[in-house]
Amino acid sequence: MKQLHRKDLFGWSEFNQERNLDFHSVLWVRKSGNALIDPLPLSDHDLMHLQSLGGASIIIVSNSDHCRDAENIAVQTGAKIVGPAGEQENFPIDCDRWIADNEEIVPGLIAYQLEGSKTPGELALVLENSTLITGDLIRSHIAGELCLLPTAKLSDLALAHKSLARLADLPSIDTVLTGDGWPVFKHGNAALQQLLEAQMKH
Amino acid sequence: MKQLHRKDLFGWSEFNQERNLDFHSVLWVRKSGNALIDPLPLSDHDLMHLQSLGGASIIIVSNSDHCRDAENIAVQTGAKIVGPAGEQENFPIDCDRWIADNEEIVPGLIAYQLEGSKTPGELALVLENSTLITGDLIRSHIAGELCLLPTAKLSDLALAHKSLARLADLPSIDTVLTGDGWPVFKHGNAALQQLLEAQMKH
Repeated sequence: MKQLHRKDLFGWSEFNQERNLDFHSVLWVRKSGNALIDPLPLSDHDLMHLQSLGGASIIIVSNSDHCRDAENIAVQTGAKIVGPAGEQENFPIDCDRWIADNEEIVPGLIAYQLEGSKTPGELALVLENSTLITGDLIRSHIAGELCLLPTAKLSDLALAHKSLARLADLPSIDTVLTGDGWPVFKHGNAALQQLLEAQMKH
Repeated sequence: MKQLHRKDLFGWSEFNQERNLDFHSVLWVRKSGNALIDPLPLSDHDLMHLQSLGGASIIIVSNSDHCRDAENIAVQTGAKIVGPAGEQENFPIDCDRWIADNEEIVPGLIAYQLEGSKTPGELALVLENSTLITGDLIRSHIAGELCLLPTAKLSDLALAHKSLARLADLPSIDTVLTGDGWPVFKHGNAALQQLLEAQMKH
């Protein structure tokens, strides 16, 4: 796995040929149990790396299109899976817990329930006030800039804008770890503000 | 290949298990012939993508440890290979041209010859005044920050600092595309200045 912007955060990635961008997953190393977010399949090397860092006790899936290899990794690590409360009725995999808006999933990791995305109640996560981790709604197609999912995929553009505005209103966000496309490691709040401004012009 | 921060720049990457970071290569799409920098092996998908964007007419190798798949890709594309003049006598692959300090390799792409790195005359490239592309000396081990090759690998730390200072003195650099580790897409000059300050404290 790759070191991210903090010593306790790691990531692994997979190039997607259809979209010509990388998909990303995140590991947060915590004394009371490591957390994985939207985990892609792990290579043998990365699985060994994960085990050397203490395995995983919780897997957070942001939305039903980001289950990826969560079930399999839960079996390998013994981690519990948690998913978005908004999809509880039709989620494709079993979850041990359903996460609602403003819920503290583990200490220091707050869920923001997004509206208007392609799935109901997609989760974005704020880690210790400074790192935003996004699933599908907020992403990057041009390196260094954030974008939204294409409008055609959104269930409600106005609600998506409202959810974006809520995140852009968090001044202490320095890093945005996107699930899809290049992450923004510095000046994350500025990148969110720029995206919001660009969307408001449409 | 992945879109970088400009519509005419693409990259492809390979995770390195030994160092737990990605190696990167760059494609610059140009009307008068595309340029590749330190090209890693291309997947079939990326080779087709490259061909759809016009193939390649020049391959620039920054140093002898970054030859990677240059020879093979030169055969596939018909591109000429150019390498650092400082290594002309012992370069591991044939080059069609040797690049010296301040040379304009193709219009808009200027070579900076670095001193004190692990190989003589390692090249860094400045693309249209705003994008710095580095080989080995300047890299990233923690996302969002630049670092130098470990001192033990450098041939001369003081000369390496002098080369770094020269690049940090280019105010218009916004992006640093590292050969090894996470790129810095925005505020590249600030990242170079921070690295220089951190080095001066040692």
